[in-house]
Amino acid sequence: MKLFSSVHDVTNIGELVAEGLQLKQSPYAFQDLGKNKTIGLVFLNPSLRTRLSTQKAALNLGMNVIVLNMDKEGWALELQDGAIMNGSTVEHIKEAAAVMGQYADIIGIRSFPGLKDRDEDYSESIFNKFVKYCGVPVVSLESATRHPLQSLADLITIEELKTKPRPKVVLTWAPHVKPLPQAVPNSFAEWMCKADVDFVIAHPKGYELNADFTEGATITNNQDEALKDADFIYVKNWSAYEPYGKVLPGNEDWMLTLDKLQPTNHAKVMHCLPVRRNVELSDEILDSDSSVVIHEAGNRVWAAQAVLKQMLQTL
Amino acid sequence: MKLFSSVHDVTNIGELVAEGLQLKQSPYAFQDLGKNKTIGLVFLNPSLRTRLSTQKAALNLGMNVIVLNMDKEGWALELQDGAIMNGSTVEHIKEAAAVMGQYADIIGIRSFPGLKDRDEDYSESIFNKFVKYCGVPVVSLESATRHPLQSLADLITIEELKTKPRPKVVLTWAPHVKPLPQAVPNSFAEWMCKADVDFVIAHPKGYELNADFTEGATITNNQDEALKDADFIYVKNWSAYEPYGKVLPGNEDWMLTLDKLQPTNHAKVMHCLPVRRNVELSDEILDSDSSVVIHEAGNRVWAAQAVLKQMLQTL
Amino acid sequence: MKLFSSVHDVTNIGELVAEGLQLKQSPYAFQDLGKNKTIGLVFLNPSLRTRLSTQKAALNLGMNVIVLNMDKEGWALELQDGAIMNGSTVEHIKEAAAVMGQYADIIGIRSFPGLKDRDEDYSESIFNKFVKYCGVPVVSLESATRHPLQSLADLITIEELKTKPRPKVVLTWAPHVKPLPQAVPNSFAEWMCKADVDFVIAHPKGYELNADFTEGATITNNQDEALKDADFIYVKNWSAYEPYGKVLPGNEDWMLTLDKLQPTNHAKVMHCLPVRRNVELSDEILDSDSSVVIHEAGNRVWAAQAVLKQMLQTL
Repeated sequence: MKLFSSVHDVTNIGELVAEGLQLKQSPYAFQDLGKNKTIGLVFLNPSLRTRLSTQKAALNLGMNVIVLNMDKEGWALELQDGAIMNGSTVEHIKEAAAVMGQYADIIGIRSFPGLKDRDEDYSESIFNKFVKYCGVPVVSLESATRHPLQSLADLITIEELKTKPRPKVVLTWAPHVKPLPQAVPNSFAEWMCKADVDFVIAHPKGYELNADFTEGATITNNQDEALKDADFIYVKNWSAYEPYGKVLPGNEDWMLTLDKLQPTNHAKVMHCLPVRRNVELSDEILDSDSSVVIHEAGNRVWAAQAVLKQMLQTL
Repeated sequence: MKLFSSVHDVTNIGELVAEGLQLKQSPYAFQDLGKNKTIGLVFLNPSLRTRLSTQKAALNLGMNVIVLNMDKEGWALELQDGAIMNGSTVEHIKEAAAVMGQYADIIGIRSFPGLKDRDEDYSESIFNKFVKYCGVPVVSLESATRHPLQSLADLITIEELKTKPRPKVVLTWAPHVKPLPQAVPNSFAEWMCKADVDFVIAHPKGYELNADFTEGATITNNQDEALKDADFIYVKNWSAYEPYGKVLPGNEDWMLTLDKLQPTNHAKVMHCLPVRRNVELSDEILDSDSSVVIHEAGNRVWAAQAVLKQMLQTL
Repeated sequence: MKLFSSVHDVTNIGELVAEGLQLKQSPYAFQDLGKNKTIGLVFLNPSLRTRLSTQKAALNLGMNVIVLNMDKEGWALELQDGAIMNGSTVEHIKEAAAVMGQYADIIGIRSFPGLKDRDEDYSESIFNKFVKYCGVPVVSLESATRHPLQSLADLITIEELKTKPRPKVVLTWAPHVKPLPQAVPNSFAEWMCKADVDFVIAHPKGYELNADFTEGATITNNQDEALKDADFIYVKNWSAYEPYGKVLPGNEDWMLTLDKLQPTNHAKVMHCLPVRRNVELSDEILDSDSSVVIHEAGNRVWAAQAVLKQMLQTL
């Protein structure tokens, strides 16, 4: 694998999930693969799980890890082609990416969307320029419109915990106090649409996701109906796609509470974290056995390790 | 050892000190112990000595190290149980701690006190919640009321440099320009009270420490008297316990100067650092052979390494 | 080697360049040398290339790496001898340096000039105090007036890419929007003056460098004339030495553009990066085969590795 930016970069999803679960059993079995190989993790935004789990995955594989907080430790990046750089940006992404490619065998990069200009965000210009100019394999640590390592960890978690061959998985919108990217729901949706699950998306009117990511999913505005017989509930807020990046008024009753789990099939509740307690999800769920969010976060290691292993094998 | 938060977590202090001194002789003797084990060092506040010495200790033991500046690289933490998280905090400590426990075999955490609410600080709520929720062994990198790795390094230093079986050790308050935590003096006091030393605390009226930490110590407001025949002088500022977190006017003459060493027994001068030169301690002392502050800082490695070794042995 | 602060610390420049080029062929040949040795990289300023390439070099040599962003993760440093530290500085450089020397076998430090007080900057007081007090070998990661790892990488690049025994190398001033240090041009000049090249410096009137660094160079204010038959063009902005740290009005036409390469000998264009596109250098050059800036940045690893190898051999 030379690029891991979306589900479309994966030739065999089932194999990748199985690889993750095998690595969970034998975390240190492939340390020769990473010997003298370096991963550079570049953050343009904050990160907890991705930062730690990807480091851990790389260390498990015997790699060296170099972390760069580009915004704080490096230089302000210019992203526009042809820019006359007489303002506040110090280094063009062309040079920054190419230089980092000189020092790393694999690069991971996180770049959130601005949520101002939809075309700009959905063109993935920062991520794609990085891929174009760095010259080495790149793994997305969450880009403007996708978070594939999260989605792979989610699928690993479902595969691990499911109690029937084809579980019902419901992605349900949740309230939040500020506009969040669509990266996690987009990404979760496109992975679920390719997985062997019965996939339903529930959200209030106005929160329709870009249809490119949801082809094959059942979509409803009725949360109660969606949750019925659910095996897994994936709770997540996102801002509107149209008007782009906006929070629509109302919908506080979409917070997932314990009583909403009644009609489900003892559903396991998932969330990518960080979660706003008692806004997106109630304390009573997060503190109950229904929640698998910590287990899910733990699986981030095996998702990252499966991807890095496949990348190392092509170096 | 599963927890290192205070002297009360240590079953045999003498043995731990001896272990530190042995590791100083053979730093790399136990690298198999740490192989494929990861320590996560979580900083909610600045750190120089603790940051570097604990990394060095872990590397000496063959461990992997992941550092997280929670305040700058991660998310703003919510600490209140039951909070409706519709404000500026992004992640609850319950999730943050539990997630980090998924990625690390041992966690070190630094969390300073707010110095506003004494009950809050002395309940060690941040540190204790972290311990409660992370699910792996935790070592304090300085909490609201204690700094046990510092105290252990101090005791190692005294053991190493003492010229008589039971030296006189004086903790003397020093002036400062801003209110500092009581963590270092609390911790030093409770370790000295359990060590085989003649322990005296000298401070101006109004700077009485919480009595829980000083049981068995001789306490005086007369610095001259305290310093007489001292073998070790531990210089440290702290703010008042009552009124909590305040700096009381005056007392500038408590700065330790060279002439005050005259009546001592060629006392060695200690300080945990950072030190405000010519406010807490005069240049002439810090630049003289009486000062052992750098040697003491060097011993931070062996203190951390002794603790981590004992933790690794229980994994 | 115990100190790498300038070309004057190198006994045999040709040998050091050759060592860098050999390490490029066999990056992992000396991993025993760095086993259980730790480098501490201390940054008082931002860094991308130096930060990553020096880490990579140390890892290639089998070393442990500890990075400290002193300004953000540690304490505000006091630099004045004899200061009464009752202001905002928390730790004196005497202690900070000495303490870091306790935890590292080699220290690298970056400290930019203030560009306010020429005597202060040119005395290299921060860097020199660090060297004086830390007690271990020190490598400059760019100081107030020099950037020797960059210059060594530049010379390695020239040696690698030259097509004649004694190439013509031209350092040409370039426009910029803010005052930059003289460290890179000073350093490049003093290395080139000792190398087997025909070295020319071109700059507008008023941008004369300190003569200590340029002895033996041909200096001109005529860029066209300088570039004639050039084999390598090193583009760099710097602020005036007199009046110190100022940007003089005009000179925008000193930007290097493709047409200016016509009279050269197919010159290769170098720059230490970061570069202000279309201010210092035009897009058309940076995006053409004439530019070797990425290759040059890649060579930063081998420069650092050659220096660290020589330092490790003297430990």
